[in-house]
Amino acid sequence: MQIGMIGLGRMGNNMVQRLMRGGHSAVVFDARPESIAGLEQLGATGSKSLADFVSKLAKPRVVWMMLPAAIVDQELAAIVPLLEEGDIVIDGGNSYYHDDIRRAEELKPKGIHYVDVGTSGGVFGLERGYCLMIGGEKETVEHLSPIFATLAPGVGDVAPSKMRSEEAAKNSTAEQGYLHCGPSGAGHFVKMVHNGIEYGLMAAYAEGLNVLHHANIGKQTAEKDAETAPLSHPQYYQYDLDIAEISEVWRRGSVITSWLLDLTADALHGDAALSQYAGRVSDSGEGRWTISAAIDEGVPTPVLSAALYGRFASRGNDDYANKVLSAMRAGFGGHHEKPAK
Amino acid sequence: MQIGMIGLGRMGNNMVQRLMRGGHSAVVFDARPESIAGLEQLGATGSKSLADFVSKLAKPRVVWMMLPAAIVDQELAAIVPLLEEGDIVIDGGNSYYHDDIRRAEELKPKGIHYVDVGTSGGVFGLERGYCLMIGGEKETVEHLSPIFATLAPGVGDVAPSKMRSEEAAKNSTAEQGYLHCGPSGAGHFVKMVHNGIEYGLMAAYAEGLNVLHHANIGKQTAEKDAETAPLSHPQYYQYDLDIAEISEVWRRGSVITSWLLDLTADALHGDAALSQYAGRVSDSGEGRWTISAAIDEGVPTPVLSAALYGRFASRGNDDYANKVLSAMRAGFGGHHEKPAK
Amino acid sequence: MQIGMIGLGRMGNNMVQRLMRGGHSAVVFDARPESIAGLEQLGATGSKSLADFVSKLAKPRVVWMMLPAAIVDQELAAIVPLLEEGDIVIDGGNSYYHDDIRRAEELKPKGIHYVDVGTSGGVFGLERGYCLMIGGEKETVEHLSPIFATLAPGVGDVAPSKMRSEEAAKNSTAEQGYLHCGPSGAGHFVKMVHNGIEYGLMAAYAEGLNVLHHANIGKQTAEKDAETAPLSHPQYYQYDLDIAEISEVWRRGSVITSWLLDLTADALHGDAALSQYAGRVSDSGEGRWTISAAIDEGVPTPVLSAALYGRFASRGNDDYANKVLSAMRAGFGGHHEKPAK
Amino acid sequence: MQIGMIGLGRMGNNMVQRLMRGGHSAVVFDARPESIAGLEQLGATGSKSLADFVSKLAKPRVVWMMLPAAIVDQELAAIVPLLEEGDIVIDGGNSYYHDDIRRAEELKPKGIHYVDVGTSGGVFGLERGYCLMIGGEKETVEHLSPIFATLAPGVGDVAPSKMRSEEAAKNSTAEQGYLHCGPSGAGHFVKMVHNGIEYGLMAAYAEGLNVLHHANIGKQTAEKDAETAPLSHPQYYQYDLDIAEISEVWRRGSVITSWLLDLTADALHGDAALSQYAGRVSDSGEGRWTISAAIDEGVPTPVLSAALYGRFASRGNDDYANKVLSAMRAGFGGHHEKPAK
Repeated sequence: MQIGMIGLGRMGNNMVQRLMRGGHSAVVFDARPESIAGLEQLGATGSKSLADFVSKLAKPRVVWMMLPAAIVDQELAAIVPLLEEGDIVIDGGNSYYHDDIRRAEELKPKGIHYVDVGTSGGVFGLERGYCLMIGGEKETVEHLSPIFATLAPGVGDVAPSKMRSEEAAKNSTAEQGYLHCGPSGAGHFVKMVHNGIEYGLMAAYAEGLNVLHHANIGKQTAEKDAETAPLSHPQYYQYDLDIAEISEVWRRGSVITSWLLDLTADALHGDAALSQYAGRVSDSGEGRWTISAAIDEGVPTPVLSAALYGRFASRGNDDYANKVLSAMRAGFGGHHEKPAK
Repeated sequence: MQIGMIGLGRMGNNMVQRLMRGGHSAVVFDARPESIAGLEQLGATGSKSLADFVSKLAKPRVVWMMLPAAIVDQELAAIVPLLEEGDIVIDGGNSYYHDDIRRAEELKPKGIHYVDVGTSGGVFGLERGYCLMIGGEKETVEHLSPIFATLAPGVGDVAPSKMRSEEAAKNSTAEQGYLHCGPSGAGHFVKMVHNGIEYGLMAAYAEGLNVLHHANIGKQTAEKDAETAPLSHPQYYQYDLDIAEISEVWRRGSVITSWLLDLTADALHGDAALSQYAGRVSDSGEGRWTISAAIDEGVPTPVLSAALYGRFASRGNDDYANKVLSAMRAGFGGHHEKPAK
Repeated sequence: MQIGMIGLGRMGNNMVQRLMRGGHSAVVFDARPESIAGLEQLGATGSKSLADFVSKLAKPRVVWMMLPAAIVDQELAAIVPLLEEGDIVIDGGNSYYHDDIRRAEELKPKGIHYVDVGTSGGVFGLERGYCLMIGGEKETVEHLSPIFATLAPGVGDVAPSKMRSEEAAKNSTAEQGYLHCGPSGAGHFVKMVHNGIEYGLMAAYAEGLNVLHHANIGKQTAEKDAETAPLSHPQYYQYDLDIAEISEVWRRGSVITSWLLDLTADALHGDAALSQYAGRVSDSGEGRWTISAAIDEGVPTPVLSAALYGRFASRGNDDYANKVLSAMRAGFGGHHEKPAK
Repeated sequence: MQIGMIGLGRMGNNMVQRLMRGGHSAVVFDARPESIAGLEQLGATGSKSLADFVSKLAKPRVVWMMLPAAIVDQELAAIVPLLEEGDIVIDGGNSYYHDDIRRAEELKPKGIHYVDVGTSGGVFGLERGYCLMIGGEKETVEHLSPIFATLAPGVGDVAPSKMRSEEAAKNSTAEQGYLHCGPSGAGHFVKMVHNGIEYGLMAAYAEGLNVLHHANIGKQTAEKDAETAPLSHPQYYQYDLDIAEISEVWRRGSVITSWLLDLTADALHGDAALSQYAGRVSDSGEGRWTISAAIDEGVPTPVLSAALYGRFASRGNDDYANKVLSAMRAGFGGHHEKPAK
């Protein structure tokens, strides 16, 4: 099958490669010519402009956009006038699902089909395959199934779920690693929650490893003043733990084995102090939208929220609140801030 | 009544003054001679050593310790051998209530009475009076009631609680601002929870003011990349709010009026940017112990914990966890940390 | 000054009374005739329909809506066609500030002025006055100042903030209990955050009192099985605390004195077990919107979120998540749920 | 190697079987004779009493206890008098690491070696192997390595960590699934944190799935009153999602693949409504201790705490706090609780 790919960053580039390896052909476009050139060498058809890109696609055209969420709408505005009834536009990035619902409605009168695909897998997707969560019309999604099947990991060596019914096995492609989740927006909705969960999982490991990291705090001499909580029992915090090896041992047989743990262990093997990082953690939207959806639904998500807030605070966004606390403490107790060590 | 006070810091000094104004006499001791001299000028009897201090107290002696929690036990070890059966030792600082239970048991065979008093009021207590939460034997507590009554604020102009029963009014001194809460440790247990609540209240205001502080974020131009959550609707964040005046207006008639708000408003009037503060917020034990007690009891305290953790993070104790998150993001997504602005 | 009030529930009714006591006249309307009749007896001018209501107002008309947020737009759609250029519409309820911005823009071409007023004070406002947070055009807000000044508490016996500048005192009405916070939406934005803080304060007290409530847990005999966390030191949880008297003593001189504490103490004096309540806690929007705004701003609000989520969970919205946990525990550990006691 | 096992519940029974399959011999004891009989049929040597059990063990004896944390000390008190210098006692259950430190010190003068082993793997451990986190003296741990190697999963088909150094590979057994973490208590400390993380991971999935579960909330008609937060945009919550298939698709190629997800998917395939569960979630100690350790260390653990508190609340331990909130709302706003639906 032929696919047109706009956006050849980390994700788009690898996806084109995986599709071509799977026997599909690709027309590609990106604002950076060097990204196009790289894929041309691997067999893709490059294009010099959006118009050129569209002209090289067979009808009905299949256009996959793999772009930062913030620029999808402007790109869409540029390409839609070049498309025709029956063409398909796929947003495989991390768009807000509200936008999917709107876009699908806007494109419907033009006869252009819009499909939203939440794509998980990161830089490993080229080899490992991408988990695809798909929203849109049933027929369009089925039409695209050869592409989804190639991008997805396939059944692989993941053990089958014993309790899965034969009916589910017959009607759903979930075992192949892609799933039509529902109408427009459903793909990104499910991907959004996936990322919300991801934030929570990551924070759970990070907090636990931080507790291990400070397990030798009893060896430090603490100050004794009214500003400092005394450590009552320093004898319980005398451990110098090898955090890399601990994360390694957890990879086998423990309840907390996971792919994220695999990655974490590898990073810790490289440098258990992680000194190359400053600890300023970005967030790219889905975590926030998950909380918004939860609040709209009235569903408590304390863990997912705490994970998100930890990222905000890592970037200093809690500074003013902390200053307010210091000002209050000075106000009622005459407490002075202690200097950083 | 005569009282002996050990520890003439912010709290102890003011309490001696308030007691002397109320007609009591005081013998005072502190490791810093200048603290003693200051109170001598106001009429207190100074002492040159613990032995001198004890010798100047009439029997049964009343010794009030107002010391950092971390040094109470060593001070107690020094003074107890100088005391006699029937003497009373009061710990008015922020001791862990577990220690009260232990100390009371240790002193019992010697016939020395131990009373734990949680003291709230801060630097304003001299004028405003101290809220006293008291644990210990009923008789001893009643014996000390003249002292408690003087230290406490009294009924003052706080409106009576309409639903309070006549029986409560007759049997309890709560309306005067001091209360015998229960046996040994009960005073500090209640004070511990008081401070746990205090942390939660402070954080609630601080977070809310931080939301107001950033209400003009829509005026900033945001980057559009895959690392940054886009601000969908900058038009909703165009407010330059006068936070000092807002905290002022809340002081009258709102649901969130409080003494902490009064102090906060005053601090904000001084400098709404709070630029003299770095935002490194100490915690002095009670907040931690409240969470420990809650966990022992199986009682969920998400708000009080979040308030405590915010203080930990304000001091950089989340750094390693954040580095783990950055390492994970680099691992699965090839994400790089964005530099601090 | 004459005011027209639509919506005569708990809040609207009392506000009309307070305005009339302050010398203003009122035309009133409500879907329930009995609510109108009650205020007519107190001197208000009732009306039989919206058209009747509008016809009885002098120009430029001042229409104050005091309605549930969910029905403001439909009411506005009904009344706007009856109004004229120069008229003023005030939304004094708990609208989302996004709606204020939209409405103000929609009404602008018609020459109708829209003012949003966040109103705090609850059922006590009639006597205590209402704290008013106001958004809209400067001139319109100033035109309405006689009404705001009457509804607000005034300076009262709240101590002045010592650090407040003379300039602030001259230019701002905050000390009187009402404040023009900024352009359209600013009033409800500030009120939204006020309520977000309110949720946090309430939860802080509630959690702390719950810790006190369970302080006798060591008296219960615990089961010893692999499903139950053992209580290591039951001797530390032997306190039968008088929670009503503790909340009473905190009202005087403590750091956590507040109006919410006053109300809580009174409720506890009535029945410390609070057995008339089931503990299903509603939330009416502002708490949710505060979190949404915080997330848009990238501001961490763990305390305010935890408070909101506690309410969600109190209504059973965490049920499915808890079932997932039980299913997982059964899956990896063969753990069975323990029955409710 | 010969091992003596006390405690033949879910965990102990399977471990004995796995050891015997691996060529080790076992002497077993349990308070329930039927548990002993079952293992005798598989080749284990049963015993009629602790004395009988000890007499059947070759010296130096190796005694592995697999018991609920709450009864380890009483069992230890019973067996220690029967042991001799050079014998080894292993606590493989979920003891608090403080107890390990104490026990190791108490047994040292008797020449009895104490080893603490955190054991993860649950009911699947028999086939999958157990992840073992070990604390104690180096020599004793090395002496027991044949047992640990058999219980652990071994390298298996888990991919090697690319960044792991050759030195680590040579000096550490982590890749085999067991690790000597440090001196006494280190094993249970690491296991404690493992479980703390486990709680966090579980809650992250549970919250996310709950958001998916309520994704059709826009189809419900909401009440419009001042007690209810209006759902502004019901059109965004119209999804009827197949949660079982979504968890299935996430198992392949997504960032959140994990063993816990595998288990969850299987449970959801069985019954996506999870109607056999009431949602009362137990906690067995480690999650609590993780938070205590974090607080002692001053390390923020908001995610792990939130996960723990969710369990507390699932058992109704937030009831009193929620009643306090309802009482406050009635107090300031005249709000009445809405009945359960």
